[in-house]
Amino acid sequence: MQCYRIQIEYDGSAFCGWQRQDGLFLPSVQGEIERAILGFCGEAVVLHGAGRTDSGVHALGMVASFHTSKDYRPEVVRDALNAHLRMNLRGQPVAVLEASKVGTQFHARYSCMRRHYLYRLLCRRAPPTLDKGRVWNVSGSLDLVAMQSAAANLLGQHDFSAFRTSICQAASPIKTLDSADIMQAGDEIHFRFSARSFLHRQVRIMTGTLVEIGQGRRLKNSIPHAFETGLRTDAGKTAPAKGLYFVCADYDV
Amino acid sequence: MQCYRIQIEYDGSAFCGWQRQDGLFLPSVQGEIERAILGFCGEAVVLHGAGRTDSGVHALGMVASFHTSKDYRPEVVRDALNAHLRMNLRGQPVAVLEASKVGTQFHARYSCMRRHYLYRLLCRRAPPTLDKGRVWNVSGSLDLVAMQSAAANLLGQHDFSAFRTSICQAASPIKTLDSADIMQAGDEIHFRFSARSFLHRQVRIMTGTLVEIGQGRRLKNSIPHAFETGLRTDAGKTAPAKGLYFVCADYDV
Repeated sequence: MQCYRIQIEYDGSAFCGWQRQDGLFLPSVQGEIERAILGFCGEAVVLHGAGRTDSGVHALGMVASFHTSKDYRPEVVRDALNAHLRMNLRGQPVAVLEASKVGTQFHARYSCMRRHYLYRLLCRRAPPTLDKGRVWNVSGSLDLVAMQSAAANLLGQHDFSAFRTSICQAASPIKTLDSADIMQAGDEIHFRFSARSFLHRQVRIMTGTLVEIGQGRRLKNSIPHAFETGLRTDAGKTAPAKGLYFVCADYDV
Repeated sequence: MQCYRIQIEYDGSAFCGWQRQDGLFLPSVQGEIERAILGFCGEAVVLHGAGRTDSGVHALGMVASFHTSKDYRPEVVRDALNAHLRMNLRGQPVAVLEASKVGTQFHARYSCMRRHYLYRLLCRRAPPTLDKGRVWNVSGSLDLVAMQSAAANLLGQHDFSAFRTSICQAASPIKTLDSADIMQAGDEIHFRFSARSFLHRQVRIMTGTLVEIGQGRRLKNSIPHAFETGLRTDAGKTAPAKGLYFVCADYDV
């Protein structure tokens, strides 16, 4: 048995999300890569991903792993999967950036030590053209310093119940946020979050809450209060999927 | 009479290019903005642009100007044009970033002191997904230092006959290139060129020539030779339109 680790870039707007699901109009990233693996090496495998992104959420470096009885050079796996993805999907919204051989104990989801997300906010009146579907466009000024101060309240271990959806399947709402950096980048504001793991839509709800604070529509000290009550209604609206990127995942191996 | 200067962003893949042309399947940027102006202020105007980009070439900050008998606040012009462009064009591939009132002598093309272009080259085996249609994807390694040295040969005043198309309408092939900077940016290489004006497809032919030098498929000192002969065949292939961006234009006013 050989285990391969692959790094994947995708345009989330072409997919129903990472996870294979039945009866949806859009394909899933997981399902399409599994189909490409089947086409290439003739084996039906299960692909495990570091994160299960929602529909519309993009990835710059999603990590995934699968086992096969075949033994190919990693570059052959990368190029063959891209060839099959090109054949199967119009416009090729997903590509394998890299492939490598890893120990058979490797599991992209369970071995993952840290996940990194980026949220891109475009702050201007004019709608995006080249970055349509790639950013959340908000007009009106935002208080960057207020958002940075509020983001500091998110750091560390908390009960993030107010920052997850009602359908979140995580056993515990206790999570530890390692970093929450907010930076101006031209006419965009970039939010970067890192943690071992996140609850369902946690990054988008944290971002939505911070943006409301930046707009002056929510109290600057509202985050500690949301942690206390644990009520979803005490956090902000969920930021749209299109601005969110799974950037990369860290492993000890 | 009032003259307005507008700054425009567009996705070039949705257009036949900047210039209004009859009988083409794709609309032109110029034609669509003129149509939006007509819809907004009821006057048929001629819109003058700083550069006439080809089909597929993008703009981050194209500058254009027009005259009208109406007097609106600049923010109203920006927002109204965007509203009309949204109505007229599916997906809104063009947006007005800013509008301002300028003296009636202002002419976006003839008053322009300097134009700035960016060319984005994506250097990797995997095809682009999120940046599909936004970069030229080249696999295989490129010699960055060789390209930077060769680019220095392009600087200053030269007869750029070898670096223009046969249909170029410029009266003289003598141009002065003010800067030619090449930088690594992650897995991309960015080429930045600035000059008062450029010949038809000059930036794409210079980029194509530099990439061939970087690939070791063209002699490092071939640019002075191409200047001497003035033969198009002594320069490299034209780089694809999709990697090119009109960045901005400088004016004294």
